[in-house]
Amino acid sequence: METTGDARAGLEPTQLLNMALEDAIRTQRSIRRLKPDPVDDSVILHLLELATKAPTGGNRQNAEFLVIRDLATKRKLAQLNRAAWNTYGRVWRFFARNDEKTLRAMKAVDWQADHYEDIPVIIVACLRWSTYGPIVSGIRPPFPPFLASIFYGSIFPAVQNLLLGARAAGLGASLTVMPLWSVSLARRALGLPLWVSPVAVIPLGWPRGRYGPTTRKPVGDIAHFDSYGNRPYEGMTIETIPQSKRG
Amino acid sequence: METTGDARAGLEPTQLLNMALEDAIRTQRSIRRLKPDPVDDSVILHLLELATKAPTGGNRQNAEFLVIRDLATKRKLAQLNRAAWNTYGRVWRFFARNDEKTLRAMKAVDWQADHYEDIPVIIVACLRWSTYGPIVSGIRPPFPPFLASIFYGSIFPAVQNLLLGARAAGLGASLTVMPLWSVSLARRALGLPLWVSPVAVIPLGWPRGRYGPTTRKPVGDIAHFDSYGNRPYEGMTIETIPQSKRG
Repeated sequence: METTGDARAGLEPTQLLNMALEDAIRTQRSIRRLKPDPVDDSVILHLLELATKAPTGGNRQNAEFLVIRDLATKRKLAQLNRAAWNTYGRVWRFFARNDEKTLRAMKAVDWQADHYEDIPVIIVACLRWSTYGPIVSGIRPPFPPFLASIFYGSIFPAVQNLLLGARAAGLGASLTVMPLWSVSLARRALGLPLWVSPVAVIPLGWPRGRYGPTTRKPVGDIAHFDSYGNRPYEGMTIETIPQSKRG
Repeated sequence: METTGDARAGLEPTQLLNMALEDAIRTQRSIRRLKPDPVDDSVILHLLELATKAPTGGNRQNAEFLVIRDLATKRKLAQLNRAAWNTYGRVWRFFARNDEKTLRAMKAVDWQADHYEDIPVIIVACLRWSTYGPIVSGIRPPFPPFLASIFYGSIFPAVQNLLLGARAAGLGASLTVMPLWSVSLARRALGLPLWVSPVAVIPLGWPRGRYGPTTRKPVGDIAHFDSYGNRPYEGMTIETIPQSKRG
């Protein structure tokens, strides 16, 4: 286990406190090009502690995280990632062939796939089975959607806390699932027992790229009031809604 | 549509900027007991804009939100919620009969079920189908897990941004799925077209309760290093890890 000082020795655990929530949310983006410099355990634990603060279904607190720095394990994940990207990426690239913005984003995914073994930390977000009497939670249900929502709703809020924390700490991170295209192969590569399901993979490290504001469609386009399709603020952002509607 | 001033008239949209990320994360919790006082459109749009900043699979930006204040629709959701809670809650209550803490949490769920129609705003987080050439994303796949992770991973990070934003704005919120126990009944109650899947329900309003630090198991218990079960920080929090490990 790597515990040597990181590239930004002197980073205080409390440094995270300095960034305003809204800044962190507005400037969080996928950073895939990472430096190989190590990341301290204390920083990782800080981010994971923030992850544990997210809600879980029935407050079962059954989210678990695997922190991978071992080269042999990283190699196995890198292979799984490449196998998925070689197939999926090729199809996507074909259909995106006239879409400059998407092609640029795919280059970062290429970079990540090519340098996977050099990424200092790979975090795998998992859910562990948990029981309450005979009520079992944390088993990945293929069906019905209601149970699937409880399952995934117990891990992705934690992942988002982790991503926001990484952004505030100045660490690059991205939310990926490709290395998990085959859960059984991933489980074997990671040595996970049957009662732990891997759900997402977050490569983490000091960024080569930069954080900054992201571009999204206007909030008025995705906010429907009372009935689907009723979008009184279509095309508007919170900057452009009429003054009379501002609280 | 209700657009009258809310209980905290004068709330600035920029008020969210004032809370530090780490404070928001550490004090976010389910607040189910809500005042009936209205919540301004501008505040709701602000939170939804923050939601749109979360990552989505392949950056499809296909998260959509239904903002419900119409009493007839709230009634239908209230009925679906009660039907689920009457069954599920009874079973859970039986097994939790000696667990004071869980029974107390269930009282808040009871309160929410009893007062559902008085909750000022119900937000339903949805995913819309989206295509890229013949590649379709945003269809809720029962299988394989890989695709399900992409689906749910495109909406729950946005939901977490919304919950954190609500906390920073001083609004009470909770992450629920019970009203969606039957997706077809929920779809009918909400008038959702087939190409929009409801995934989570967030009742929102000015809180009767208070926010505050949450209790979680120590981060050292859920952080496994390199192989599952290797927990060098078992029992420790970021406050209690040895000084030598702090970055």
